[in-house]
Amino acid sequence: MLPTPCEVTWDDGAMELDEVIRRRRMVRRYEADEAVPDDVLRRLLEYAARAPSAGFSQGWDFVVLTEAADRAAFWAATTPPGEEPDSWLSGLMTAPVLVLCCSDKERYLDRYAEPDKGVTDRDEGFWPVPYWDIDTGMAALLILLGAVDAGLGSCFFGIPVGRHEAVHETLAIPPDRRLVGVVSVGYPAQDRRSPSLKRGRRPAEEIVHWGRFGAASPPTPEAL
Amino acid sequence: MLPTPCEVTWDDGAMELDEVIRRRRMVRRYEADEAVPDDVLRRLLEYAARAPSAGFSQGWDFVVLTEAADRAAFWAATTPPGEEPDSWLSGLMTAPVLVLCCSDKERYLDRYAEPDKGVTDRDEGFWPVPYWDIDTGMAALLILLGAVDAGLGSCFFGIPVGRHEAVHETLAIPPDRRLVGVVSVGYPAQDRRSPSLKRGRRPAEEIVHWGRFGAASPPTPEAL
Repeated sequence: MLPTPCEVTWDDGAMELDEVIRRRRMVRRYEADEAVPDDVLRRLLEYAARAPSAGFSQGWDFVVLTEAADRAAFWAATTPPGEEPDSWLSGLMTAPVLVLCCSDKERYLDRYAEPDKGVTDRDEGFWPVPYWDIDTGMAALLILLGAVDAGLGSCFFGIPVGRHEAVHETLAIPPDRRLVGVVSVGYPAQDRRSPSLKRGRRPAEEIVHWGRFGAASPPTPEAL
Repeated sequence: MLPTPCEVTWDDGAMELDEVIRRRRMVRRYEADEAVPDDVLRRLLEYAARAPSAGFSQGWDFVVLTEAADRAAFWAATTPPGEEPDSWLSGLMTAPVLVLCCSDKERYLDRYAEPDKGVTDRDEGFWPVPYWDIDTGMAALLILLGAVDAGLGSCFFGIPVGRHEAVHETLAIPPDRRLVGVVSVGYPAQDRRSPSLKRGRRPAEEIVHWGRFGAASPPTPEAL
């Protein structure tokens, strides 16, 4: 018997943003036989394409696996030959849909070499942070939120360092694309809560700093 | 006269996710004298803290500038001494609120050194992608979405490579935090549309690949 069933209840109707954000959590086990409706899946992908991106570069690609054989090939590629998949993957492997979210750095370098940006030498030193990865992560988050809205569950997970090449080869992903993460999507099945959640959410006083780092006191009312 | 006023209309009520995602765009000029209500600002920060994070690490900090003197110090730090701020910043500088979104890599390395993850040597080579930056970017996106929901405008922007140190010093941000980006928040003022939008959104056929990279054809109905 599973120790702690998930308390979340799911809704089929469109939801307000506030509720979507509060309900969102990683779902790691799915009803394997309940397919994600085509129109819903396409809406989630449309949301992904509405993520912000530096210079409207939109440097991302989404490889969508809906067929069992494709998903099996993906899972096989994530596991070293001769080994069993990690046990924590057994739930994720029930997902009827996988969306591989790939970033495309070259598209950003090209975009910023245009006249209005002027980084004509395509210098990577121009970029303080890999915004191609960050923007692609934002796209993944929009899929996660859209899944909650549609009464679906989803999970965002990374691929171990040593398995990127095999996944690239299996799914013909060009070497210059980076696999930022995978979003699994499906109808949630009963599962235990992630043990990580026991850590608790960090309180606002710890993560929010007013006026300068380390300043916990809220601003004066006059300042707002 | 500004050439192309923004066609977006803004709403004060709570909004459904679908509408929020479709309405969201970067707002680069604000009504400087219209403060963001305290309860709204705190809700946006609560949304940020609800972003997903690897291992529930929550390795992020948000430095919130609501006072004119703090914002002025920030803007001064982003500009090389003796130079004028870039002209595209003149609109952003009207924002009554700035939220500096910082990632905290050390917190991820610490979290994954715990027994259930087992990366006891805190090896950075374990991480295929900087999930601290990606998760912090997701937190920023939740602020952007929350702003739309609250009838506010917002913009996510990066700080040039050479100015990170000055911003860190000015706001006492520890050196091990990385400034992933800044979210400006306020009531939108009339502005022209970003020239980048002329590029158009990339079509789904170009960014969505079915079954393997480069496969544009949709899956058969049976597969869904």
